[in-house]
Amino acid sequence: MEYETPLFFHVMTYAARADRDVIDMVSGNPDWEPPEALREGLREYADLESDRFQYPPSEGLRRLREQIATRRGVDDDQVIVTNGAGEANYLAMARALEREAGSEVLLTDPVYPYYPGKTTMLGGEQRFVAVDDDGQLDPAAVRAAASEETAAIVVNSPNNPTGAVYSEATMRELVAIAEAHDAVLVSDEVYDHYDLSGRFTSALEFDSDHRIVTNAFSKSMAITGFRVGYGVFPPELVADARTRHMLVNVAGSRPAQYAVARALEDTDPAYYEANRELLYERVETFTDALEAAGAEYTRPEGSFYVMARFDGFPGTLENVERLIDEAGVAGMPGEAFGSAREAWLRFALVTPRVEEAADRLATYFE
Amino acid sequence: MEYETPLFFHVMTYAARADRDVIDMVSGNPDWEPPEALREGLREYADLESDRFQYPPSEGLRRLREQIATRRGVDDDQVIVTNGAGEANYLAMARALEREAGSEVLLTDPVYPYYPGKTTMLGGEQRFVAVDDDGQLDPAAVRAAASEETAAIVVNSPNNPTGAVYSEATMRELVAIAEAHDAVLVSDEVYDHYDLSGRFTSALEFDSDHRIVTNAFSKSMAITGFRVGYGVFPPELVADARTRHMLVNVAGSRPAQYAVARALEDTDPAYYEANRELLYERVETFTDALEAAGAEYTRPEGSFYVMARFDGFPGTLENVERLIDEAGVAGMPGEAFGSAREAWLRFALVTPRVEEAADRLATYFE
Repeated sequence: MEYETPLFFHVMTYAARADRDVIDMVSGNPDWEPPEALREGLREYADLESDRFQYPPSEGLRRLREQIATRRGVDDDQVIVTNGAGEANYLAMARALEREAGSEVLLTDPVYPYYPGKTTMLGGEQRFVAVDDDGQLDPAAVRAAASEETAAIVVNSPNNPTGAVYSEATMRELVAIAEAHDAVLVSDEVYDHYDLSGRFTSALEFDSDHRIVTNAFSKSMAITGFRVGYGVFPPELVADARTRHMLVNVAGSRPAQYAVARALEDTDPAYYEANRELLYERVETFTDALEAAGAEYTRPEGSFYVMARFDGFPGTLENVERLIDEAGVAGMPGEAFGSAREAWLRFALVTPRVEEAADRLATYFE
Repeated sequence: MEYETPLFFHVMTYAARADRDVIDMVSGNPDWEPPEALREGLREYADLESDRFQYPPSEGLRRLREQIATRRGVDDDQVIVTNGAGEANYLAMARALEREAGSEVLLTDPVYPYYPGKTTMLGGEQRFVAVDDDGQLDPAAVRAAASEETAAIVVNSPNNPTGAVYSEATMRELVAIAEAHDAVLVSDEVYDHYDLSGRFTSALEFDSDHRIVTNAFSKSMAITGFRVGYGVFPPELVADARTRHMLVNVAGSRPAQYAVARALEDTDPAYYEANRELLYERVETFTDALEAAGAEYTRPEGSFYVMARFDGFPGTLENVERLIDEAGVAGMPGEAFGSAREAWLRFALVTPRVEEAADRLATYFE
């Protein structure tokens, strides 16, 4: 089989086995608390009648789907509740490739590694468009790469790994390019609650039969292990996506969906604001320390990640392992995200020890 | 897209909307209680630290995988915890077809409708082998149908919809046929706890690199909505199945896996015996009433299902809807399971009202 296993689990396992204290900045697992209403939802669920332990509707618990549809301003019928954003992206990309309107998937470089993996698994061809030094995607570059072979354009804003947030103009252009080439824009917006720039724009802003928006509660509610996400599909694409969802997974896990529905209803906006504020403070702390150490780094406009570059220390898996063993800081190798950031390392700000981590890096590289 | 949506959800929706009392014998949703330890596991989980709400290992919580491996007598590494048996079958069939050792999938007729749907979705060709009047699969017929084009042989024992339990000799032969044709036997054993014949034999009894066993806790613990299942793969096939699992779903839902692990540890065998006994009594009650009504029917050796045939009333979707409206009993159309049982209807014994249902049928058809 030709598609690659993402490196995340490998690095996390290596870090967990290290014979020293390691600050984990590998995964995108939030270290903050889920909403209290989520825990309450699980407790409630545990005491329900046993018929509530059986198959939910394949497309998701009605109560959850309706809330998602209302919040996103779309029809219930357009929403499929999935096993996390991972499955939503899989369904979206499968749908784009099955339309028989091209077999090429346009991806950014750097890229979230699951996208090229899914592309190959689904029989598509990868084609990469480099972003600029700030992580911004130039629509003109996408337009130049697009052709009648383009089946899908897959983007992620706020972005993992660059931290870039795409402008409204960029999103509008991406939808237009998908339309012009009879392709599907797949817009993965899983970090939408962690927009630090104030300019995040959802692809849902632009009504089109050529865009699918994917999302999840994994990051916004700090529950990556619950696997509750969703896709919003245009009316013409939703039926086939629903069929694939049913044939692959039958349905998502009901206790998790129930708890998320409860948390959506009863969580104050202040919960999300506090976590965004926490993240903002960590960005400041970490980048200040990197600055003081003379390192090159990116300042994220959103998402959880800072990329940093150290002289003579390219972002290879080998160097990441060395950094775990010798500095006690675990990041992700830049080479995991494509060729454009091979010299860089990615650090996730999901630990209260970001300042200590930056100090360890500064000491190690000084 | 050419693959079909299973009819289950359609019929269940129709029955739910009927303007009268309907006895639901459509789905395979047990109406009995889950283990108490399962509820207890959910309550425990709700109070865990937030790091336990993040991604479990992609292949499943270690504690759960280890218990499965121990119970099934295989290495932990061979087990992938999946989003129900549905995903396990999808992974198994994908693996068989990706080996590039044929593109044909041998299925039984009648067949559980998800199997042909998955086959087409995965780009395989369906080829059906008819079972005999008792639902038994003759290995000689499978051998006659097998060729170098055979990628997979997919079987289900105890069987849905026939209720047949395959003998040890049959299972041994099926493994041998898969080996002889460089194919993969996919043995879906999700009803193993509901063997009423005492002769159920798992394909795991026959060590081979050419068989994958799938299963779930959906039926055994009466939790179809939790979506916790697993596949046991031969060492040469497990790595690629794990990659596909990761690329499609990342991981399964952690609260559900946690609760199942807890229930596996703390549930007395008497729990499973009591449910099997309940099912046995329902088989007696329902078939006695059908007998008294002069109907033709099958007596299941296992699983939840009785098939029945009424003169001049073939098992079409239209007739199923008429039976819902006019008799107040909801079953599944035989045509949903392939051509061999088009004249029949399938009734699931997952309601305490089986006697009343049989009486309604007898009255309606007398």
